[in-house]
Amino acid sequence: MVLEKINCANDIKKLEKDELPALAEEIREFLIHKISVSGGHLASNLGVVELTMALHLAFDLPEDKIIWDVGHQSYTHKLLTGRKDGFDQLRKYGGMSGFPKTKESPCDVFNTGHSSTSISAGLGYARARDIQGKDYSVISVIGDGSLTGGMAYEALNNASQLKSNFIIVLNDNNMSISENVGGMSTYLGELRTNDVYTGLKTGVTNALTKVPVYGDRIVKRIRKTKSGIKQLFIPGMLFEEMGITYLGPVDGHNVAQMVKTFREASKLNEAVLVHVITKKGKGYAPAERHPARFHGAEPFEIETGIPKNTKKKPSYTDIFSTVMRKMGDREKDVVAVTAAMPDGTGLKRFRNMFPERFFDVGIAEEHAVTFAAGLAAAGLIPVVAVYSSFLQRAYDQVLHDVCIQNLHVIFAVDRAGLVGSDGETHQGIFDLSYLSSIPNMCIMAPKNKWELSDMMKFAVKYSGPVALRYPRGEAYDGLKEFRAPVAYGRGEVIYDESEIAILAVGSMVRTAEEVRQQLKEMGYACSLINARFVKPIDEELILEIERDHCLIVTLEENVKSGGFGEKVLDYLNQAGSHAKVLNIALPDDYVEHGNVDVLKQEVGIDAGSVLKKIVAAYIGL
Amino acid sequence: MVLEKINCANDIKKLEKDELPALAEEIREFLIHKISVSGGHLASNLGVVELTMALHLAFDLPEDKIIWDVGHQSYTHKLLTGRKDGFDQLRKYGGMSGFPKTKESPCDVFNTGHSSTSISAGLGYARARDIQGKDYSVISVIGDGSLTGGMAYEALNNASQLKSNFIIVLNDNNMSISENVGGMSTYLGELRTNDVYTGLKTGVTNALTKVPVYGDRIVKRIRKTKSGIKQLFIPGMLFEEMGITYLGPVDGHNVAQMVKTFREASKLNEAVLVHVITKKGKGYAPAERHPARFHGAEPFEIETGIPKNTKKKPSYTDIFSTVMRKMGDREKDVVAVTAAMPDGTGLKRFRNMFPERFFDVGIAEEHAVTFAAGLAAAGLIPVVAVYSSFLQRAYDQVLHDVCIQNLHVIFAVDRAGLVGSDGETHQGIFDLSYLSSIPNMCIMAPKNKWELSDMMKFAVKYSGPVALRYPRGEAYDGLKEFRAPVAYGRGEVIYDESEIAILAVGSMVRTAEEVRQQLKEMGYACSLINARFVKPIDEELILEIERDHCLIVTLEENVKSGGFGEKVLDYLNQAGSHAKVLNIALPDDYVEHGNVDVLKQEVGIDAGSVLKKIVAAYIGL
Repeated sequence: MVLEKINCANDIKKLEKDELPALAEEIREFLIHKISVSGGHLASNLGVVELTMALHLAFDLPEDKIIWDVGHQSYTHKLLTGRKDGFDQLRKYGGMSGFPKTKESPCDVFNTGHSSTSISAGLGYARARDIQGKDYSVISVIGDGSLTGGMAYEALNNASQLKSNFIIVLNDNNMSISENVGGMSTYLGELRTNDVYTGLKTGVTNALTKVPVYGDRIVKRIRKTKSGIKQLFIPGMLFEEMGITYLGPVDGHNVAQMVKTFREASKLNEAVLVHVITKKGKGYAPAERHPARFHGAEPFEIETGIPKNTKKKPSYTDIFSTVMRKMGDREKDVVAVTAAMPDGTGLKRFRNMFPERFFDVGIAEEHAVTFAAGLAAAGLIPVVAVYSSFLQRAYDQVLHDVCIQNLHVIFAVDRAGLVGSDGETHQGIFDLSYLSSIPNMCIMAPKNKWELSDMMKFAVKYSGPVALRYPRGEAYDGLKEFRAPVAYGRGEVIYDESEIAILAVGSMVRTAEEVRQQLKEMGYACSLINARFVKPIDEELILEIERDHCLIVTLEENVKSGGFGEKVLDYLNQAGSHAKVLNIALPDDYVEHGNVDVLKQEVGIDAGSVLKKIVAAYIGL
Repeated sequence: MVLEKINCANDIKKLEKDELPALAEEIREFLIHKISVSGGHLASNLGVVELTMALHLAFDLPEDKIIWDVGHQSYTHKLLTGRKDGFDQLRKYGGMSGFPKTKESPCDVFNTGHSSTSISAGLGYARARDIQGKDYSVISVIGDGSLTGGMAYEALNNASQLKSNFIIVLNDNNMSISENVGGMSTYLGELRTNDVYTGLKTGVTNALTKVPVYGDRIVKRIRKTKSGIKQLFIPGMLFEEMGITYLGPVDGHNVAQMVKTFREASKLNEAVLVHVITKKGKGYAPAERHPARFHGAEPFEIETGIPKNTKKKPSYTDIFSTVMRKMGDREKDVVAVTAAMPDGTGLKRFRNMFPERFFDVGIAEEHAVTFAAGLAAAGLIPVVAVYSSFLQRAYDQVLHDVCIQNLHVIFAVDRAGLVGSDGETHQGIFDLSYLSSIPNMCIMAPKNKWELSDMMKFAVKYSGPVALRYPRGEAYDGLKEFRAPVAYGRGEVIYDESEIAILAVGSMVRTAEEVRQQLKEMGYACSLINARFVKPIDEELILEIERDHCLIVTLEENVKSGGFGEKVLDYLNQAGSHAKVLNIALPDDYVEHGNVDVLKQEVGIDAGSVLKKIVAAYIGL
């Protein structure tokens, strides 16, 4: 086993050249085996095995700095930097992260998770290096999907000013999580399939001499041929014209060729983009065939690629997907927008049925939201389906483009709350705070799958900006009997008793119900209110509750600061109430990766913790 | 007077061709005259007089939709759509906005204010038009400065997929507010100075025939000449390669040429970029010479261009500017980052003294913040100077790239609080909310100019992410005698009495002092606490105050939701306090344009309103 010889950074340099292909193969086997058990990002990691090896051969770690965009493709990097054992506890609570983490290794120099940040961070390193008079190399590795994000372009625009070395490796696999979209993607496609890929052909000469070069005609002719002739002249001209030197395309599964190119690139005193062509899922047939399905994979059977746990209840995403499909039929003004997540958000079915009313804009949340604002201003009803942590990217667009104009844009905020194994960067625990301080915004959260459907129907009839937030994973199918019509700003009384009142938001209604059962068994009377609306809060109902209860508990899967609980408390204070209020929410901290149930215990919002807090508060009265 | 004939949209079409130059001249005179009295955006508006006329001649308003990026260049558009009289109350409370407003005119179809949104919004309109089976034209007018913003690129990337007409007018004046920067700017510069501008020269042919066209040599040769030969072939190839048809460059002061080009452009079934070259400040010598100074101008003498009110006290920006200059000398690790605002943020002096430690990244707040995170990860101390409302753009980067990693990045958040005449989109009234729900963030606000300096020194010695927020305009120079050392998380007791305690944040300390004087005159005892830290709040001090006072008042120039007051209330609730708390902050609403003193009265945070609220609350106890 060659892999056994790799126990820390730079061990790979001690191998004989002819051991490298075996190493690549062993790494793939290792990853497939481990991820088939633990789950995790597979397709992206299989695609960059040789690329990572080449980087580790061409550069010296940890002196040189490699920054992985998004970071879910860093498994081979982890393997080559002494973290082989970490894979047994990959993405588990307390175990190794699925993303680069500076605290894990000095070879991880910048934490990532969201897309399109690596060029900015790398340029920061390069500029700092120059100011400090150091001479390490900085390499940002970015996928073609991430290149659709605007901040990557902002960074390229800025990097063009650099007069020292900085290497941007474009890991081009022709994919975001799903198919990549947009003009840049088309452009890269042309580069990939270009003759230049295999060396300049004499055809160039022939093509050229046939072009008449007089006056306007040349412009017209060349414009007509679009990229064909132009690209024969010089590949990567788009990057060159922005002031970024372009090298490539290079075969991303040929280690020697990449090492040679990286060494050449590191000699240039400027920002250099090395275009590397890889295949997502490379070396594992099921992942090559279905790269999107093997993006973030659940544990699976290696032989077939079939997930081990197939009999799952429908998720909130599934419910949303069905609602959208049906709504597409009934409501001709409803259109759907995703930022490169047709699969993840469940919009794929809507796309398949109503392709002309579906828009995948690429990994471009900012554009997605303002584009939706334009659609709404023109009279349509756009539904922007987006994960909570990614909507953070478009905070200003929500505030400035949608809400100031009070436009009817529906935000379907998926993965709101703790998401589990992806960790800090993906937890959707801030949306109630960042959305609720925005004027004109209306925020809802469903308690179960039927309510998600009811709220979507409400949202379509509503007339301003409205966000629905729902968590990752299985949709709750309890409390079916409670299905009062959704009314603007009104909560839903589920159990009306006395003493203690729990006001729970969305996913926490289920927890609250469990807690209420236990409180009853302990002899306490407890009301349960489904808040439904986080903004506006139901002031009337809150006042009623205040009159009949001595302890008001708020419960939400969001940080406390700026969340639902503080709004209730603020209202009660304004109303002159002296009621005892207990706000249970997430602490002012990031939450790392791990099983959601474990995480809930850690942050104190599982039923057991909530019960303890309520009893303590009640006894303390 | 030709201008007298223009009283509503499309009136311009009734003019004779030979009246158009006179109209342009009269519009310029009108604008210079009006803005010399009221203040406002001058240079950008003078630059687009002919461009706006051409758009109004080529298209039909309000059927066709013109979307102005940023929108501060829409004055001629307002003139041509029947809003001449509005200029007497331009940017005044209740008067006409300096930006497009859908409520002002059906010819304003999308509100703007922040940069780089127009292509997204326009594409939304274009897609909606196609779905609805309508056939109006959509035109987004974007400056070359705004084109450095990533979301403009995201939108271009998406627009390339469009198979119907959508016109993007690139208003290229080679400027952001200050000089434009980056690779795109360089590229546009090459297009501007290109031969193509005045028609293809026969030199093209000569140049071409001299190029040896065999194998690698052509690539090397063409690469060596960089843009020279390449651009002779086809201008705007960068856009073409992204899938956007390019037309131009066109002289932006030649109405006939523009009208012709716009009509041609509107025939194409795709996204078309029309590159128009304009001169910022055109027709007014002082503005042509100093376009940055005449970007947002104060009232000035027309003859000389000199501001009427020259004897102003230094602003917080001035103080920050001085502090940064001095700090640059002492602290060699301090570097400065701005997103296209070297003048506005006061970093210009730092740039002049330490050019190698200064970075203007273009209108690219997202990149600015993550770039700063990279600088900090590499061991430098970056100061990101940015307006509060523009930092909204980088919310995710602050959270995801700076704060998760707990990096030592200093945010100098200028224009925090009400900014006045720019209105809704520029009010810096959300930063305390959106920043304080982010874990690891430390937030300060100085009460006067000395404290800004002390806090900057504290921030440099601190080790994590830290934001200082200070308002637009004159720096307060009172309370000089209160200058206790700044200590992490500790407030400053200014007057220690009993009964009522006012905890004020930053700019509101001055107001609180005034209110306290009046309360004293009315016979109330009142303590005054300068909060200093909004995060973390000074829990110990708050508990002390709670013991000695019967009414605790919080006072902040930020929306209440998620702000300082709610944090104090939440802490007191947690601590089991039953103190009466009065949170005075801005309402859950946008605040339009107007004089800051007037706005403060309107939203109830001027001294008079605050006094009334406190007295009412105290009496109600």
